[in-house]
Amino acid sequence: MKLKAFINYVILASVVSACHSGDSKSSIQPIKTEIPPRPEGTTDLIGFASEPIETVGVGFVGLGMRGSDAVIRYLSVPGSKIVALCDIEKNRVNEVQKELNEKAPDLTPATYSGEMESWKGLCENPDVDLVYIATDWKNHAPIALYAMEQGKHVAIEVPAALTLEEIWSLVNKAEEKRLHCMMLENCVYDDFEMNTLNMAQKGLFGEVLHVEGSYIHNLSDFWDEYWNDWRMDYNSKNRGDVYPTHGTGPACQLLDMHRGDKMNTLVAMDTKSVGAKDWLEKHRGERPEEFANGDHTMTMIRTENGKTIHIQHDVVNPRPYTRMYQLTGTKGFANKYPNQGYAFEPEQFANDSLPSYENLSAHRYLSDEQKDELTKLYQHPILKEVGGIAKQVGGHGGMDYIMDYRLIYCLNNGLPLDMDVYDLAEWCSLAPLSAISIENGSAPVEVPDFTRGSWNKQKGYRHAFKQ
Amino acid sequence: MKLKAFINYVILASVVSACHSGDSKSSIQPIKTEIPPRPEGTTDLIGFASEPIETVGVGFVGLGMRGSDAVIRYLSVPGSKIVALCDIEKNRVNEVQKELNEKAPDLTPATYSGEMESWKGLCENPDVDLVYIATDWKNHAPIALYAMEQGKHVAIEVPAALTLEEIWSLVNKAEEKRLHCMMLENCVYDDFEMNTLNMAQKGLFGEVLHVEGSYIHNLSDFWDEYWNDWRMDYNSKNRGDVYPTHGTGPACQLLDMHRGDKMNTLVAMDTKSVGAKDWLEKHRGERPEEFANGDHTMTMIRTENGKTIHIQHDVVNPRPYTRMYQLTGTKGFANKYPNQGYAFEPEQFANDSLPSYENLSAHRYLSDEQKDELTKLYQHPILKEVGGIAKQVGGHGGMDYIMDYRLIYCLNNGLPLDMDVYDLAEWCSLAPLSAISIENGSAPVEVPDFTRGSWNKQKGYRHAFKQ
Repeated sequence: MKLKAFINYVILASVVSACHSGDSKSSIQPIKTEIPPRPEGTTDLIGFASEPIETVGVGFVGLGMRGSDAVIRYLSVPGSKIVALCDIEKNRVNEVQKELNEKAPDLTPATYSGEMESWKGLCENPDVDLVYIATDWKNHAPIALYAMEQGKHVAIEVPAALTLEEIWSLVNKAEEKRLHCMMLENCVYDDFEMNTLNMAQKGLFGEVLHVEGSYIHNLSDFWDEYWNDWRMDYNSKNRGDVYPTHGTGPACQLLDMHRGDKMNTLVAMDTKSVGAKDWLEKHRGERPEEFANGDHTMTMIRTENGKTIHIQHDVVNPRPYTRMYQLTGTKGFANKYPNQGYAFEPEQFANDSLPSYENLSAHRYLSDEQKDELTKLYQHPILKEVGGIAKQVGGHGGMDYIMDYRLIYCLNNGLPLDMDVYDLAEWCSLAPLSAISIENGSAPVEVPDFTRGSWNKQKGYRHAFKQ
Repeated sequence: MKLKAFINYVILASVVSACHSGDSKSSIQPIKTEIPPRPEGTTDLIGFASEPIETVGVGFVGLGMRGSDAVIRYLSVPGSKIVALCDIEKNRVNEVQKELNEKAPDLTPATYSGEMESWKGLCENPDVDLVYIATDWKNHAPIALYAMEQGKHVAIEVPAALTLEEIWSLVNKAEEKRLHCMMLENCVYDDFEMNTLNMAQKGLFGEVLHVEGSYIHNLSDFWDEYWNDWRMDYNSKNRGDVYPTHGTGPACQLLDMHRGDKMNTLVAMDTKSVGAKDWLEKHRGERPEEFANGDHTMTMIRTENGKTIHIQHDVVNPRPYTRMYQLTGTKGFANKYPNQGYAFEPEQFANDSLPSYENLSAHRYLSDEQKDELTKLYQHPILKEVGGIAKQVGGHGGMDYIMDYRLIYCLNNGLPLDMDVYDLAEWCSLAPLSAISIENGSAPVEVPDFTRGSWNKQKGYRHAFKQ
């Protein structure tokens, strides 16, 4: 099974011409991309859960920076077993095996390496229930498709898919095989995000109207670390927000995306490209004439229910790290970077629920004392349960562990996963859709309904727990 | 002289249809608005300066919250004299006069009041050199046009004009009469903005690529203060970023707008409207069915040189005040809200210029100690000159005074003002242009070149000083 080469997905004609004097409420329509019809005999996966798996056999493909850390984390994830390891580079497999031998000498995972498609063997291994994919971006979707074809659930690093064609293939395959196809979006599991989501779900912000997110991370020190220079190569060839999921994931959970609301229209804009050219000139002695990805890329999205999302991407300029995470509600406000802060209408609290209640104001951030009490009152139940061990195991401050823990917990208990294939589709789609917008002068682009009509079946996003 | 009633400015047809499979670099054009030809016999005002005026006679129209404060501030502005006062409400004129009597008994300004157009008398008063307009928004442009017709320079509160028609009328009249027509945008004079602009002009941020600004200010406590409810009324009838200039002004100065670069394309998006309806229901007992202005409005702008600007507006939700002021450059980064911070590539500094030089990193904000030293090194010359007295006189922490001081200083010395009529036009145009974009499903809209071809004559924005 091979995906076609990376191409621009079919864009259906669609900006009907123009508006005229005095009639500014006009007929301009967003650019539409093709929504393939659902294959016959298949249905949506809204609320989908598979049969409980007592011990989930996990096979890892890709043992670079992310993958090798994941394997070691899984030693601490209850209900799972590391059954297979794969990397194109044999020495990476050996290194991980060596570490495993020291920490868990009884474990003897099957290993695969040496060939471009050695992952096929892992996908075919009957001990594997879940294929955990952490390769370069381009191999995410092809491996996931093959794994699902072999009847395996898949968990795929971000971004799980790069093109609309890949995304629709994953949706179709997951629906056809009735399998989980989850993206490993860790940033929805960070403390501030989880606690704030809990507050939002309990109505503390009133109606959440606007959410922001970003990936702003100067990668100067990392560019040389990617196998075969794949990441720089990818950015050099693609405009748009090529890494949108860390910012989008938390935003979409707050807005109940495809659980009562859906993204309708997107517009994007970028700056010219300077930073990567500077870096290449400085570190590799040659300044490219062309570099597709703009230094700073912005995307705005409007939803069916009249909410907005704003996403930014910048991996080359000298900026402190931020995922921008911010929400504006009708009764409260939260902001994570550069400082964690909350502000609320005082009426949102009973007058003895927070210290110095009389100082509460919509114009002011909570004091540290008030914020600490708020966080205690609204700590997310998952953090209560495993926040402690997550901090011990680590992985981006614990969020990687919680992601792994929840994935296995839900598979063990036959529950819907925290993120389904439509989350994957929506969050990944912003990359190719933002590119279409930018390449068309920031024209509005329709965000496809990847549920194909089922976005309003489930009301509100919630994590699943066993009874 | 009367402006036509508020109408949507002529929108020229322009979104040529569509892009097709595989051809995503297509022919979609932004919506264009009409650029009226420059009236015969007139030329642009780039770099324009009038003859020096030894003592500038100032006539104030509109003595509400902003206007009455301004009159008192002018007691401290050297080179100026308060020669006339006007407000439709006689008692406001009386109150200001009373305060003047106490503070400067020798001053006996002419007064005008009682009628809708009593400002005409003030504009005709031969003692008046400069008409300072701080009325409700709708009267800004009509009064300014009449004042220029009488040969007076004008300074107009933000936003100086509401429609493209008003904006073009002001540009045409200023060019025809060779008069200053400045918008009183105070936020370009705040300490952080001025010092950061100075750093930018000295190259500290490398090439400035992206700038953000906003007006996010919960006006709950103010809605009842506006004469005849004009502000709520205006917002209820208009979508778009209706108050864009505080965010846009500093951004445009950083990007040398119409001094070597120009805004090309804009797209905007808003949320539905909830907050103002909630407020009206709570405070006035009636919830309107319709309210045009969305709670949260975003605008993105791309420039000729491939830079971007991002602007936001929210005056109804519970958020701490922010103007968002932020710049991303190829060598450095600055952010004002919620905390003032700077980050730089270490190479931007000699290794003894900042304390703890060895800790400098593009990934980290400067320490407080480093920031203090940086601010000392790059304090803006105008702040050095009048920052002290500005803090004493006050007005938004001194920035109002500096604005007034600079306006009179430049008029006294026959220098170009810090902000010209094209700044006014560009910054104000974002309101009607963002409305056009939003009403057309976030379609791209061309930002007109208000200089009509002269945007690249002057290279770089600079404040003028006498030799």
